[in-house]
Amino acid sequence: MPVQAYGAYAGDKPLEPMEITRRAPGPHDVWIDIAYCGICHSDLHQVRGEWAGTQFPCVPGHEIVGRVAAVGAHVTGFQQGDLVGVGCIVDSCKHCEDCASGLENYCDAMVGTYNFATADAPGWTLGGYSEQIVVHERYVLRIRHPEAQLAAVAPLLCAGITTYSPLRHWNVGPGKKVGVVGIGGLGHMGIKLAHAMGAHVVAFTTSQSKREAALALGADEVVVSRNPDEMAAHAKSFDLIVNTVAAPHDLDAFLVLLKRDGAMVLVGAPASPHPSAGVFNLITKRRALAGSMIGGLAETQEMLDFCAERGIVADVELIRADQINQAYERMLKGEVEYRFVIDNATLSAPARKDQ
Amino acid sequence: MPVQAYGAYAGDKPLEPMEITRRAPGPHDVWIDIAYCGICHSDLHQVRGEWAGTQFPCVPGHEIVGRVAAVGAHVTGFQQGDLVGVGCIVDSCKHCEDCASGLENYCDAMVGTYNFATADAPGWTLGGYSEQIVVHERYVLRIRHPEAQLAAVAPLLCAGITTYSPLRHWNVGPGKKVGVVGIGGLGHMGIKLAHAMGAHVVAFTTSQSKREAALALGADEVVVSRNPDEMAAHAKSFDLIVNTVAAPHDLDAFLVLLKRDGAMVLVGAPASPHPSAGVFNLITKRRALAGSMIGGLAETQEMLDFCAERGIVADVELIRADQINQAYERMLKGEVEYRFVIDNATLSAPARKDQ
Repeated sequence: MPVQAYGAYAGDKPLEPMEITRRAPGPHDVWIDIAYCGICHSDLHQVRGEWAGTQFPCVPGHEIVGRVAAVGAHVTGFQQGDLVGVGCIVDSCKHCEDCASGLENYCDAMVGTYNFATADAPGWTLGGYSEQIVVHERYVLRIRHPEAQLAAVAPLLCAGITTYSPLRHWNVGPGKKVGVVGIGGLGHMGIKLAHAMGAHVVAFTTSQSKREAALALGADEVVVSRNPDEMAAHAKSFDLIVNTVAAPHDLDAFLVLLKRDGAMVLVGAPASPHPSAGVFNLITKRRALAGSMIGGLAETQEMLDFCAERGIVADVELIRADQINQAYERMLKGEVEYRFVIDNATLSAPARKDQ
Repeated sequence: MPVQAYGAYAGDKPLEPMEITRRAPGPHDVWIDIAYCGICHSDLHQVRGEWAGTQFPCVPGHEIVGRVAAVGAHVTGFQQGDLVGVGCIVDSCKHCEDCASGLENYCDAMVGTYNFATADAPGWTLGGYSEQIVVHERYVLRIRHPEAQLAAVAPLLCAGITTYSPLRHWNVGPGKKVGVVGIGGLGHMGIKLAHAMGAHVVAFTTSQSKREAALALGADEVVVSRNPDEMAAHAKSFDLIVNTVAAPHDLDAFLVLLKRDGAMVLVGAPASPHPSAGVFNLITKRRALAGSMIGGLAETQEMLDFCAERGIVADVELIRADQINQAYERMLKGEVEYRFVIDNATLSAPARKDQ
């Protein structure tokens, strides 16, 4: 099936309209009309070839929401018209220990929503900057938010689950003190979610100007991490710090803020390594430096339901498809609060009419 | 009370006989005739001034075993003649969350057995390379091993608890696969203890020559870590790796051997940092890099009892006090299997008679 999409033919070329092909839905497939797709920083890394192994043409996008257009004969969980989402995962082995535990995100055979090998044309997956997508029902999520919130739900599929998963895994709840480092696409969701779980939330930012915004998102306190006195006031006090900053930075400045048995969880992978963390800071309080990558399907559904029950969505700026390249530039400058979301209806409109 | 000891007057001077003073036992103190004291690598670092802040004269030693000579009026747990031990801790605040949890090792006011500030002369603590020591009963351990094993029990007080504590904290037992990196004073105890807990134990060494010895200690498998094929065969398979190597080395080579949710625990602090560990290796399998430092008093007693019930002791080489300097040189060359223990009765013998 030919489908209109937006992607790039090379790492040094802008994204542009293109036609791609989706497979004919199989018995377990869900055929989805994509309404909105969030723009994740990973999209930019991949499509510009900043990460190794990008296959071109590349169509990014893994924060997908829309409506079911049709379902395969054996699909029982979804029917035409349902509001659904697709996140970072569209396939996995389905039988390993990780898959059996509902942690398909850690399956060695996980197939990401774009740029992963697949039997479908052209040989690698193509993401959500497109009109439609066909996905095995196991990797489709149900959306229980009101339809009016649909665009703002899209970023939950990556930014939401990436922060929700470590918060849950490290048992965040009332009585826990949780730090969120970085107030961007991931961080703003981390603050909202940790707050909703009942934790005392401290947002860390390098920029004094984000103080009010972080409080508005649900932070109980805001610390400007460049201010040593503000940092020192929180020494040895955190149960968990979720660090969303992918740029290389001094991890020790945050490790010393953890109490005994506290953990700092990294959810962003820097292109070049962080400076080496001090072993002494780990040893003296039995602290841990850990990592976490998106989340499993069951956990993602749990997160979506958690958010739907509490009216939690991302703060988004809706754009047309022909604004994607411009949105990338603004994202690099941090000029977005906090996530761009593409209105996929604009993919089929006359392209670039106002550029 | 004047007591014969062995210590150094400066970081660049050898250790030599010296007379020190112990405080008069208070109502909660236990006065101990030291029978044996193990030699830990930390002793060498501290007494040679390789770690900052060494106070001279410095008397090292925190693997102490002996007999109770007398007890203070309010001591109820010990009496004259009891076999006892003293490890790395001789005082702490006794009321913080760590102390209340039996984790005095993480108390901010922990007083180490040597080179920590104290009200006693000369103003800092003096360790177990001495005839006697006076210690508050809270920090005295009961030894239930037969007296004939006493010298080989001494290293349990540091090398034993330093490896036992992370093995217990990270729930090692039957069905778990545990790695121990480095087969020295700490590592040889880690192998024995993990084996006794019922885990499948893999010893990592850089030296092919230690293969048979590691198997004899209780390892189920031995991996020469310089051999990439041997390493690759264990990819993504470990629940826990206890890394006893303090020299800077490539942590990623071991992190990739952890399964999902696995942890590598560092128990040695390198003088210069390890190369930065790859965040990608943490994120992709939710792995953790953690640290652990000795253990609390309750945990140390549990470890001693665990070892007494199973006949577990360290492998030791008994030396006279006048062989300490020579033992340090041999320790630096790795020429010890696996721990030197001083026969403290030789402290009062004519010094250096055969040097």
